[in-house]
Formats: sequence, C-alpha cells, structure tokens
Amino acid sequence: MSHSALPAVLDRLDADLDAAVERLFALLRFPSISTDPAYKPACAEAAAWLVHELNGLGFAAELRPTPGHPMVVAHGDALADPASAAPSLLFYGHYDVQPVDPLNLWNADPFAPAVETLPDGRRVIRARGAVDDKGQLMTFIEACRAWKAETGTLPAKISILFEGEEESGSPSLIPFLEANREELSRDLALICDTGMFDPKTPAISTMLRGMMGEEITVKAASRDLHSGMYGGPASNPIRVLAKILAALHDDTGRVTIPGFYDDVDDISPDLARQWEALPFSAAGFLGAVGLEIPAGEQDRSALEQIWSRPTCEFNGVIGGYTGEGFKTVIAAEASAKVSCRLVSRQDPEKIRAGFRELVSSLVPADCEVVFKRHGSSEAVVMDVTAPEFEAARTALSAEWETEAAFVGCGGSIPIAGHFQKLLGMESLLIGFGNDDDNMHSPNEKYDMESFRKGARSWARVLGELSRKA
Amino acid sequence: MSHSALPAVLDRLDADLDAAVERLFALLRFPSISTDPAYKPACAEAAAWLVHELNGLGFAAELRPTPGHPMVVAHGDALADPASAAPSLLFYGHYDVQPVDPLNLWNADPFAPAVETLPDGRRVIRARGAVDDKGQLMTFIEACRAWKAETGTLPAKISILFEGEEESGSPSLIPFLEANREELSRDLALICDTGMFDPKTPAISTMLRGMMGEEITVKAASRDLHSGMYGGPASNPIRVLAKILAALHDDTGRVTIPGFYDDVDDISPDLARQWEALPFSAAGFLGAVGLEIPAGEQDRSALEQIWSRPTCEFNGVIGGYTGEGFKTVIAAEASAKVSCRLVSRQDPEKIRAGFRELVSSLVPADCEVVFKRHGSSEAVVMDVTAPEFEAARTALSAEWETEAAFVGCGGSIPIAGHFQKLLGMESLLIGFGNDDDNMHSPNEKYDMESFRKGARSWARVLGELSRKA
Repeated sequence: MSHSALPAVLDRLDADLDAAVERLFALLRFPSISTDPAYKPACAEAAAWLVHELNGLGFAAELRPTPGHPMVVAHGDALADPASAAPSLLFYGHYDVQPVDPLNLWNADPFAPAVETLPDGRRVIRARGAVDDKGQLMTFIEACRAWKAETGTLPAKISILFEGEEESGSPSLIPFLEANREELSRDLALICDTGMFDPKTPAISTMLRGMMGEEITVKAASRDLHSGMYGGPASNPIRVLAKILAALHDDTGRVTIPGFYDDVDDISPDLARQWEALPFSAAGFLGAVGLEIPAGEQDRSALEQIWSRPTCEFNGVIGGYTGEGFKTVIAAEASAKVSCRLVSRQDPEKIRAGFRELVSSLVPADCEVVFKRHGSSEAVVMDVTAPEFEAARTALSAEWETEAAFVGCGGSIPIAGHFQKLLGMESLLIGFGNDDDNMHSPNEKYDMESFRKGARSWARVLGELSRKA
Repeated sequence: MSHSALPAVLDRLDADLDAAVERLFALLRFPSISTDPAYKPACAEAAAWLVHELNGLGFAAELRPTPGHPMVVAHGDALADPASAAPSLLFYGHYDVQPVDPLNLWNADPFAPAVETLPDGRRVIRARGAVDDKGQLMTFIEACRAWKAETGTLPAKISILFEGEEESGSPSLIPFLEANREELSRDLALICDTGMFDPKTPAISTMLRGMMGEEITVKAASRDLHSGMYGGPASNPIRVLAKILAALHDDTGRVTIPGFYDDVDDISPDLARQWEALPFSAAGFLGAVGLEIPAGEQDRSALEQIWSRPTCEFNGVIGGYTGEGFKTVIAAEASAKVSCRLVSRQDPEKIRAGFRELVSSLVPADCEVVFKRHGSSEAVVMDVTAPEFEAARTALSAEWETEAAFVGCGGSIPIAGHFQKLLGMESLLIGFGNDDDNMHSPNEKYDMESFRKGARSWARVLGELSRKA
C-alpha cells in the first residue's frame, strides 16, 4: 500500500512547501551555537521546538538531558504501516550550528532567515544552519509529515535522534549511545548532513574522513615584553609557533607527523576509475572560491585530496597585539587550533601522539608548549553491498533524473562511525547541500530546490525501502 | 646663584613628594591610549591637564592641534635666571600610553593609580603610563616646580614639548617639527623616556635603535571554507603565513631579509670593552622574565643583541577561529604585525622594501599578500663629545652615588633622531625606568625612588648645566 501512495505524497509535499519553509524558519531563528556557552539557552529552545513538532506528528518524542546540550529522541513504531517490508530505521540530524563570526561579513542577521533570489534565478534560504543541518533534517520531517497526512501511517518503523553538539565535538554522544544502545539500535541509520555531488547529481556518501583536533599554546616569557627592551635575546612565541606550523608540511604538501601515512590505504582501482569518470574539475572547484592551485599532496588529484587523503589544517591562530594600530610587544604566549582529517585505518590517538611528539621537539628549552585536546573520530568506510544502498540509489535517481553516485566525503561525520561500532548499524548518508552553500561561513544558505526535492527524495527513499523483501 | 640654591631645591622636592605623587596620579587617570580611536577624548583631556599645570608654573603653555592628538608646547624663557650660563633647552616627553590588553592580567584597573609595596619593600606607583612616560615626564615638571618655588626662577631657558602619539607611530610629529622649526630649535634637547642601567646605576642613552613596522595580510580563498569540504586542495592562509614568518630567521637567529645587515656597523672596540665591563648577566636579564637562552644571533652577546644589533620581531598574529571551542574552518585570510629594530646606518625604507620582496616571494600564485605600513625611524648615535654630556654625567653620578654610564637603548626613541635631523639638536636621554617596570605590559609600575630621585636628578642636571661656561 505504501508505495502506491507515493505520487500523492509527492504532490502533497509540493503543495505544502510554503508552510514547510515557515516551519524551517522557526527552527532557524534559534541561535543554537553549541560551542559557545552563551547560547546554551538557545540550544535548549531549539531542541524543545523539535520535540513539540515531532509529538504533533504522532511520534513519542522527548528531550533527553546530557551533561551538555540535550538530545531529542522520538519513536514512531506505532505509526508504521504494518504492511511495510522496510527495515527499522533511525534518522539522525543535528540542531546545533557553527558560530557566526566574522559577523561583519554577513549581509543580514544570521538568525533572521529569509528567502533570497540569486542573480542566476535560484531561490535560496539564507541563515546560519540553513544547510548545516536544520534545513537538511527538516527535509526528513516533512517527508514523514506528508506520508502520515496522505496514508495515516509511516512507511517504516522510524525512530529519530537529533543531537545538539555536532559542531562542538559531540562530547555527550558516545556516552548517550552506549547508555541507550538497545533503544537506539535499528536495522539501518539514515543521516542527512552531506551534499549532492553537483547540483544535478544526487550522492550517497560511503567514505567519510575522520578528524583529530588539537589546540597548542606556546608559552615563552612570564609576561608580555617590550620588543625594544627585549627584542633579540627574548624568545618570541609567535616565532616559535610559526616554526612549528611551518614544519608540519614538507615542500610537496605531505604532512610530516611521524607515522602519519602508516595506516592510509590507497583506494581500489575500481573506485579510482569511478571517481575519474565523475564530472569533477579541480579548476572549477577551486575557482569557485577564488583559488586555482591544489595545495595538498602534489602527487594526488584534488578529488583524492578531499575524499581519500588525510590533511593537517590550521583552523585558527592568535598571539600578541591584534587590535587597531601597532604595539611593539613580544607576547608571553601564542596559540593555534590544528585539525587533521583522517582516512582509512588512521587511529586519531596515534596521530595525536605523533603530532605532540613533533611539536614538542620544535619548542626551545626555555619555552613550554601546552596541548589541549579537541574531538576525534576515525574515518568510516561503508559496506555498500547491503541492498538498502541500491534501493536508495534507485529512489534518488528517480527524483533527480540523474544517476546517483557513491562518493567520498571530505568532512567528518563521526556519528556514522559510532553507529557502526556502537550500535552495529550501517548508515545511508544522503544529503542535498551544494558546494556554494557557505557551510561554516558567512551567508550560509540552502537552495529552495535542495529543500523541496530533498523532502521528495526522502519520501521516495522511504517508499522504496518499504518495498524491500 | 642658581647652583648655590641646589641643596634647598632638593630638600623642597623631598618635602613636596606626596603632593607630587598626587599630581602624577591625576595625569595617570586619563586613559590616553593613542593607538585606539575610542580614547581620543582622553588624550585631549590629558594634554589639557598638562597645559593647565605648566601655565600654573608660569610657563606660557598651550594646546597645539594636529591631525591626530594635540601637542603641548610651553615656553619658560621669561622665567630663566639671567645669570644662568646654561644652553637653551627643549624638554620632551609623551602623555599617551600603550593599550592595556590583555586586561585580565592586570591586578587592578590600569587607570586607577595606586602606591603598592612590593615583597622586597620597594614602594611603587602602579598604573598604565607610570613609567612610560607620564611618571618620567613629571620628574622634570617637579624639578622645574622646585627650582621656581625656591629661587623664583628657572636655572635655564626651558621650553617643553609633550607629544600624544608616541605609542602609535607619531604620525603628526615630523610635520609639526618642520612647521615650528624656529620655535622649537634650542641648543640642546632633554628627553626623559629611558631607563637606568640597573637600579643603582644611572644611564645616559647615546645609541638608540630605530624601527620599521609592517602589517601583512595573506588572502587565500574568497571566503571562509569548511575544512572538511576543502581541506587538502585549498590554500590555507595560516599555513602560508606560518611559512613566511618561519622563513624570516635562519637557524642561527640571523634575519634573512635581503641586504638586512648591509648597513650594520660593529661597535668600536672601546665601546665593546665598556659594555663588557658593565655588570650585565644574560642569565639574570632573561631569568627575570622566565627565559634563559638568548634567541637572537648566536654569535652576539645578549647586550649586543639588545643595543647594537637589528631584529625582526612578530608583535601579533591572527587568523581563523580563535574563540571558545573549535571550528573546522579554513580562513579566507590571516595577518601578522611585524617590526624590525634597526641600528647604525640601516635605512627603514630599504629594509621595508627587502621585507616585502622576501614575503612576496613566499606567497603561492593563487594567494595575495597585502602590506600595510606602520611607523619607521632610523637608529640614532649621539655625539657624546659635547660638554653637556659630561655635565649630565656629573649630576647623575652625584645623585645616585654611582658613576653614570653611557649605554645603548634597545627601544626606538625616534624623537632623538628627528631633533638631530630636523632641529639640529643633540639630545640628553636620561630616564629612571627599571627593567621590571612592565613597560608595555600588564601591571606597569614606576618605583617611588625612580620618581623621587628622578626629579632630584633633573634638578641637579639643570643646576650643573647652569654652571657651564
């Protein structure tokens, strides 16, 4: 029964689009920046809004406290069409967002969502979190809403988990999954936090890079010094830090951390051929953001550099006087935030240890380096032989009228690894973001077509899964 | 007559000390941070306070506007003892101060001056500007006040120039000196903005390093990028900046700017012997600020590194996300403030050109570097054969009961060079700061003994100069 209702469900989604956008706007108005304690109340309010929304659809939804921001957990088994052949599902998204600085580069209030029309005619939803991840998670809720409205049921046993700490290292996630293993373990996870391969080509992400984050602070003199009185003999922590950061890559773009590449596998010749066949242009990819020369390992293609090669990136640096004008000071300390993207079998803690060993070796004897750990996650490689992957590919290809692709993903989506390791579930990673969405940047947006066809895509995926024997 | 009054003048200074401290406190309460436009009114108020004070002593004092902060100019020729044999004098100081960040490292409000007693029993005046330069300039005003009160005259024809932009590159100074050349040209300049050699040994600074300041901004992508989506192929401006900064010194501590050492003279064997005889310990000098290994040129003593060798220091660096927590961003740009201390015949503009050439050569073709010039000044070497230098040495030695030393000065005091070049005056650079005064740092202070004996020293210098045939 479920699948025959699909055309009506899709029509309903289109008819209900304006109201769906209004619902998304309500969620986007919460400044739920999880990394900054000042926004803790806003995170709680966003979570409560989602609970209210899901209960309104008939889910049994509730706020679940953690030491950080709350989880939203909802169960909809009672809503499931008994005739469905679908596996039981856990849908995952996150309601927290990135910080908004530099605020002066935004054209409008990041938390006052609006629909804009781009010069090329595309309509977009502009706000922090539009694509990452509020717009994406709402595509799934809207798909459920339409199925429920049209058929009175959902086409599968669906549970939902929304996290509020994805943008700040997910400190509460693993304990929560471990404490609620039985409740949250379903046959398959669905995750909507990734992008299209290109605006026409839907994608299922089957390789995800992991991450290892560190903050290092170089401490030199016991106080800030006058660069006239001490300049020359006094160690300058910015100079020490620059030497450290400069030493982390060699002249060919390879990372110099000891043992860094030990557990990095080359991709299979078959996958390499698939990737080479994709309509990807390094010049176009970099050109879109004003760059042109791939800065990673010189002997790897830009696509490999993003999808299957590890990196060491500097995400922030600060030291000394950084205000208006000039101050002739030698700072007491300087610090940097560094993150490595990891692939294959790289162990984040082994990489962290190698990083600390190398950094420590570059610090003069009268200076000190202090390390602060940030989150870490292993890379994930999905088993794409499971039949649900083919079902999803069929559904996506039908909606977008273009063959869906199995792709890599440069960003870390640690949740997929946790679902594999802790709950024994594979994940279908399907998302509708585009490269120009300004994810993590000022003026973040989500294409109206991503939102509309994203919801239609999930409606189709649920329908297709419900037909599976 | 003047000189016979000296003992009474000195007694009066001691008797008036508490009131003198109160007057200094009044000046210290103005947050006259010249580099930050937010404090422009405070700068004007500090200048007005000085005008009022000098007029009260009988000087003809006035505020003189500039495009930036006003100058204070005062003339006291009418007050001069006709019997004095002294050369005509121009005293220089500055009423502006350094910024106070990081504010959290101050133990008290930087602009609420207070007398504290250190664990070793020393009494100190604690405030931003206590030593640099409000406390120092007030030693001269108090010396004039005592001479005037005791004798009804001043022991020389004295003019005064107080600047309000010394800590922000003195943009208005040269035009002002050029426009008022005749009015300000006297036989000799007195400058109180330097330190003692050590707490017992008074010093006359006869070699001053110059400076060249630059701010560089490396621009990479046209916007901030997600380090997952772009990490690897996208140029990271922090990585580019780190490579640049790391390339500015070689492994022996020498600066690598092309031609940097071309115009650097070695000091004379005679001066080298004098410096070697001074009670200076690199271990003690660095140990006082928690360091131990001289970080400058390896083949030069720490004293040479400060007084007679040029440097390239990094005064500030910023890029990417530097707030709480972590943000996996690749920034669009990163920047650093860099300053070179200059010696001998080094030309700041030649050094600037070499710096820009080297930096530009290290920027990838798809990135851009933007340079912003900050102030510059040449090094100054005084002609110490002028008789006033010996007169001053006699006066200082008498007050401190220790032979005064001719020393170098690591900091830049561009005014001395301008006086030489623009007004044809040599400068007597005498000051009473100590190494532990936290100049330009949190918890700046000025020893009560520096203030008391500083005023007495100036009283003696004026008396000694008045005896000169």
